[in-house]
Amino acid sequence: MKYSIGIDIGGTNTKLGVVDEKGAVLKRHEFKTTDYGNFASYMEGLEKAVSFVTADTDGDCVGIGIGAPNGNYYKGTIDYAANLPFGKSAPIVETLRMSLGYEHIYLSNDANAAALGEKIYGGGKNLDHFIVITLGTGLGSGIIIDGKLLLGADGFAGELGHVCAVVNGRLCGCGKRGCLETYASATGIKRTYLEMLSKYNGDSVIANKTWDELDARVIEDAARAGDRAAIETYNITGNILGRCLADFVHFSRPSTIFLFGGPVKSGELILAPTRISMEKNLMPVFRNKVRVLPSELPAGDAAILGAAALVWSGIEPER
Amino acid sequence: MKYSIGIDIGGTNTKLGVVDEKGAVLKRHEFKTTDYGNFASYMEGLEKAVSFVTADTDGDCVGIGIGAPNGNYYKGTIDYAANLPFGKSAPIVETLRMSLGYEHIYLSNDANAAALGEKIYGGGKNLDHFIVITLGTGLGSGIIIDGKLLLGADGFAGELGHVCAVVNGRLCGCGKRGCLETYASATGIKRTYLEMLSKYNGDSVIANKTWDELDARVIEDAARAGDRAAIETYNITGNILGRCLADFVHFSRPSTIFLFGGPVKSGELILAPTRISMEKNLMPVFRNKVRVLPSELPAGDAAILGAAALVWSGIEPER
Repeated sequence: MKYSIGIDIGGTNTKLGVVDEKGAVLKRHEFKTTDYGNFASYMEGLEKAVSFVTADTDGDCVGIGIGAPNGNYYKGTIDYAANLPFGKSAPIVETLRMSLGYEHIYLSNDANAAALGEKIYGGGKNLDHFIVITLGTGLGSGIIIDGKLLLGADGFAGELGHVCAVVNGRLCGCGKRGCLETYASATGIKRTYLEMLSKYNGDSVIANKTWDELDARVIEDAARAGDRAAIETYNITGNILGRCLADFVHFSRPSTIFLFGGPVKSGELILAPTRISMEKNLMPVFRNKVRVLPSELPAGDAAILGAAALVWSGIEPER
Repeated sequence: MKYSIGIDIGGTNTKLGVVDEKGAVLKRHEFKTTDYGNFASYMEGLEKAVSFVTADTDGDCVGIGIGAPNGNYYKGTIDYAANLPFGKSAPIVETLRMSLGYEHIYLSNDANAAALGEKIYGGGKNLDHFIVITLGTGLGSGIIIDGKLLLGADGFAGELGHVCAVVNGRLCGCGKRGCLETYASATGIKRTYLEMLSKYNGDSVIANKTWDELDARVIEDAARAGDRAAIETYNITGNILGRCLADFVHFSRPSTIFLFGGPVKSGELILAPTRISMEKNLMPVFRNKVRVLPSELPAGDAAILGAAALVWSGIEPER
């Protein structure tokens, strides 16, 4: 059996694991990214962690895949990542190659890694045209076309969180207004709920939750309990998300769109209004043909699997 | 020298020509599509026309490319084309193969053919990631990714005329509201001009033109003469088109977007506001990187060249 190493670098935690070709995670490890103040010290910690998880693989690891915010696939560097103390350009691929000796080391952003994870280990195994949308603090996306990850002219294709969902809408962290991720994400759902709480003048079973106490799960529970403000929150979210999904279909005509992340755990609460809105906004030739499904990757290991999938993706960086 | 035959089937006219590998049209012919009442009689006329244009090529034609509305690349049929008397599914590729004996016969819709024409003969020769937008009665598009035409799961990818440009906006021929082509097309420009004429209460140098007299050229001349309603028409068109182009960049990160068609002849009148709006609506990482340029295909022969390019595109239909 051959193995690959998947490393998911987040602003708070770094998760890694050894994955076999079928997607089983044999050994995992996790440490605080925030324990390290700069790239050099972080790399020392990461190298120790890689040695730890690979201790029992007898040299059968064929390579390393890394998912990280602002991971530059073509250059192998993490550039200007706001939540990482790595400076303007951190040469993570080259550094790992020098210290650990692996020839096959690949880097991409976390949402692209999630799409490859879906392709190699998840619901996209037999699909050549699909899109993965990750709903978290923001909205990330990875696009598979003809069986391959869409990278575009510079490796940064697939920024669907920043398409314009509402003209002159909510202010986004990117500096623009109305970006999809300000509506369709865990954060977006929270913002929409507060608008509903305002609209209904405080009439909601979770009206007395503070900003920090409100999360997708609390709003989900309220919706299941029949709370009008919470239900309308999900309908508005699905309505906006579905309209944008329709436009993604007009672009690349995928067979399937997979949704991943905390808000998707609410199941039909978000999926049903999303599907209705997508169908309504599709031109007739595309209707009743594109599936909107939850990701088939296991939530706990998805980030590691996605990163590990980079090794098997068969896409060689053009250096 | 090897040649290919390009056939452009429109609702009014059919144009065809013999094209060499460099994009020179050696012999062309044109006839009225409307002279034929059904598919069988049309095919007789088309076969005669092909024999006429290929009379002097001594059997050096390697194949035929056909651009047609609703051309189904994978099936080789023209399906449900509203402006053609061909019924629900016309097997044009098979019919030509039987009667003329060419092995390589390819069919696609006209906008996809235009994108391949740009790739083989035009400004996209050395580009792997670009989009061609054709502005005519409607808005068509062809998308090149990794040097190949994006077809999607069923051959119908790239319907960018029907992305939602304005929520609950103008009624589109497809039955939806707010589609991009209801704003950014020759027809869309005319509709916007009439809104401006209304807004300015008839204060325009072309106020007394009838609906049939108004076209992109008349409005362009008025704008060049300083007419406020006409100038604002172009600014609004560019503003909406540019915002949608930005979202296409968020999707596939092309290096270039080529615009083609009558309204593009107005040059900077439409290109300048389009570029400004696109840049404003791009997330910062994409700014000042994507060119918006007029197509480099010669207007008169573009449809023939695009169709002929299908033969050289190197994409085999999966039958």
